[in-house]
Amino acid sequence: VSPDQPLGDVAVEVFRAEAHRFVDWIARYLAEAERLPVLSRVRPGQVAATLPKAPPASAEPLSTILADVERVVLPGLTHWNHPGFFAYFANSSPAPAILAEMLAAAFNANAMLWKTAPAATELELVVLDWLRQLLGLPEGLFGVIHDTASTATLVALAAAREAVPGLDVRRRGLVGQARLRMYASDHAHSSVEKAGIVLGIGQEGLRKIPVDDAFRMDAAALGRAIAKDRAAGFTPFAVTATVGTTSTTSHDPVPAIAEVCAREGLWLHVDTAYAGAAAAVPELRSVLEGCERADSLVVNPHKWLFVPLDLSVLYTRRPEVVRGAFSLVPDYLRTPEDALAPNLMDYGVALGRRFRALKLWMVLRAFGTEGIAARLREHVRLARLFRSWVEADAAFEVVAPTPLSVVCFRARFPGQPAEEADRRNEALMDAVNESGEAYLSHTRLAGRTVLRLAIGNIRTEERHVRRAWELLREAARRLG
Amino acid sequence: VSPDQPLGDVAVEVFRAEAHRFVDWIARYLAEAERLPVLSRVRPGQVAATLPKAPPASAEPLSTILADVERVVLPGLTHWNHPGFFAYFANSSPAPAILAEMLAAAFNANAMLWKTAPAATELELVVLDWLRQLLGLPEGLFGVIHDTASTATLVALAAAREAVPGLDVRRRGLVGQARLRMYASDHAHSSVEKAGIVLGIGQEGLRKIPVDDAFRMDAAALGRAIAKDRAAGFTPFAVTATVGTTSTTSHDPVPAIAEVCAREGLWLHVDTAYAGAAAAVPELRSVLEGCERADSLVVNPHKWLFVPLDLSVLYTRRPEVVRGAFSLVPDYLRTPEDALAPNLMDYGVALGRRFRALKLWMVLRAFGTEGIAARLREHVRLARLFRSWVEADAAFEVVAPTPLSVVCFRARFPGQPAEEADRRNEALMDAVNESGEAYLSHTRLAGRTVLRLAIGNIRTEERHVRRAWELLREAARRLG
Repeated sequence: VSPDQPLGDVAVEVFRAEAHRFVDWIARYLAEAERLPVLSRVRPGQVAATLPKAPPASAEPLSTILADVERVVLPGLTHWNHPGFFAYFANSSPAPAILAEMLAAAFNANAMLWKTAPAATELELVVLDWLRQLLGLPEGLFGVIHDTASTATLVALAAAREAVPGLDVRRRGLVGQARLRMYASDHAHSSVEKAGIVLGIGQEGLRKIPVDDAFRMDAAALGRAIAKDRAAGFTPFAVTATVGTTSTTSHDPVPAIAEVCAREGLWLHVDTAYAGAAAAVPELRSVLEGCERADSLVVNPHKWLFVPLDLSVLYTRRPEVVRGAFSLVPDYLRTPEDALAPNLMDYGVALGRRFRALKLWMVLRAFGTEGIAARLREHVRLARLFRSWVEADAAFEVVAPTPLSVVCFRARFPGQPAEEADRRNEALMDAVNESGEAYLSHTRLAGRTVLRLAIGNIRTEERHVRRAWELLREAARRLG
Repeated sequence: VSPDQPLGDVAVEVFRAEAHRFVDWIARYLAEAERLPVLSRVRPGQVAATLPKAPPASAEPLSTILADVERVVLPGLTHWNHPGFFAYFANSSPAPAILAEMLAAAFNANAMLWKTAPAATELELVVLDWLRQLLGLPEGLFGVIHDTASTATLVALAAAREAVPGLDVRRRGLVGQARLRMYASDHAHSSVEKAGIVLGIGQEGLRKIPVDDAFRMDAAALGRAIAKDRAAGFTPFAVTATVGTTSTTSHDPVPAIAEVCAREGLWLHVDTAYAGAAAAVPELRSVLEGCERADSLVVNPHKWLFVPLDLSVLYTRRPEVVRGAFSLVPDYLRTPEDALAPNLMDYGVALGRRFRALKLWMVLRAFGTEGIAARLREHVRLARLFRSWVEADAAFEVVAPTPLSVVCFRARFPGQPAEEADRRNEALMDAVNESGEAYLSHTRLAGRTVLRLAIGNIRTEERHVRRAWELLREAARRLG
């Protein structure tokens, strides 16, 4: 803090000098991230033990703070922006998005009302229409940005609940009302069940529909479950179909599910948080087949569209229902423009809304739709290449289809009982992760431990995938 | 995109050069923001009309995009980071926070599990304990960062609902259960009512308790409402008290409300989103009197603690209840460290969690607790000064107490009927806002239009408040 400005912000000239220093530090980080261990090696409590127990009374120089970032934070992070990150759904924060977040932080715009951030509101509407076109979704969908797919799914299912005729849950609540039931496959994301809990429908209000042997919802079983529930006096109201499940990226049969929903009058929500991005690639556009019939659909640019956390998009054909479920406008938030432009706070839980559209706009422009498609296509090629290596090696097996960029596989350990083979697969994963060169995560399928290699970071190249495979083979040989 | 890297990210050297250019642009923005119109002058649709209808097929240079930010985005923004921003709750994005957001974007860490971002998880725990100390809250409170207070309040009230003995709402839902009732003053934030809607309690499940003539909840009326509801067969379960209401920043009597909650066995949630920050000033610490008895409390560093949107903190004495309401851990998110360190995804709706703690940590260090207190003290001084000018001018009147940094007032327009006086106050506000030098918002109290001057931006100085007052007086004279 400069002496001539004892209150107020850090002087602009100090900011400028420090920001240039931070930029150089970040550029070095991006260039060298690949040489850092992707999975942090710290133990629980180690970072906290390094930090003072109380905040400082006096101001500290920004250079001291950056030195602590390097000394304490950096070794304590698992590097999601590392090209060897293959866990969960790998994602990216590319250069254009980092620049966008710099601007968004400086503007600190709050797009709660049109009036409080007209450009943020309108850019959100425009860029979500760009994204809609990129993914081949129908005209007229209304999109709003949320933090994560869990929130977007909660909002979608709240709208579905509000749409049940004769209930008026918004005003009257659920007590004394019809017993609601919603449906998803038993491979659906936990956020569907969490939405059921939050909405007061309860875990028992979610029927989990079995999957076929490619982990896709059985649409006939869905139809039977609905009929059984109706006969038992329940009121079915919503189905969540998943295109790109978290374990295996399996695709529920949306056209058949949409048919059931149309017949039964149920809200169809499609969770395509990860896989929806693939529709940006012309030859993969069929991943969203049937989704034009969805009442709502969530896709996460922060997963596989090269935008950093957080930015999840909820599209809906029925924005008036979402608004009817959520809009509450106290006097102090009324503006003369309310009838002329949307106030995006009306479409969700959060009132304050960061300027998230900026990073999606900058990423789409900085790479172009052909550049986005080329990168996604390359990720799918790398996943197929990795799969071919696994298939060609008798010590391993592929255990699920690979529709996009995630491969589910395991080492066989022939002659070992199932529990021991599972244990060794976990040890195998840990050994690779401890190398610091690659980070994989696991799931369980049919009660067995399965490893996942998820490609999604924009800087992942063939050499990184090849290195992960070498590490896996070496560790498998050691384990036996 | 460099030709030798047709896929992947923008080359690091291009990022470095562009980021330096962006930093200079941001530094100029911060230095000159004061000369931009604080309230945007664009009309609805104007920004959208300037933007292409479809995304570009080919990559565009970052310099072109920055030029469009300057040409399209900048004039379309209402400048929350402008020292003449006095609307809603004024807030700030100071230099240390902008630097922190640059780092957070580059790391792109997801603090869903300890393992996926150990330093982000532990820094969050440590810095929220720093904040707890700064605000004089009791030891042992568990804090978690959410996006906004609306989300934090939803989480708190979901936990309160889960804590009702014998219900098990998580599993069974609300249908067929006791009729729940919760309470807040009729000046409470709309997020309390929105939480009631989302949780399936419904608008009718929220009883709005009347306020006294200083807009504070009447604790005796609360006691009577609870008794009446019990007699009518309802199950009261939660009270939200507000310290710093949105209209007037009035303080509900938390000690008396806590007494009622203790007697009745109700969950006490305190919404201190704006005013909690004041407890960082030793002589203002009594704002949180009684809050040590709260089951949960929300405070927003992104309001009056110099951190940009979004960063809201939910503290609770009962983290196990919050966790019990929200935790759902599929196989693929289990880690060996689960028993050794918290996974912060377990305490809310969102699974993905940005590295938000970094900006709070950097702001607390860069200003120090004494620096934070000095800035807050100055804002309170400026509000009192403005209030004294209003009181001394017969053309105006102060219409609510000014406990902190927000002044509620209006021009009198003597001899005019109430509706006309309201209309002229709106015209007065619009005239000031159209000046571009100050931006105020309104509320309604006792059916009358009221103007609010909210001080909270770190770069607001006495001269900015004085200029707002000059503009108000000039406009009032013109309006008659």
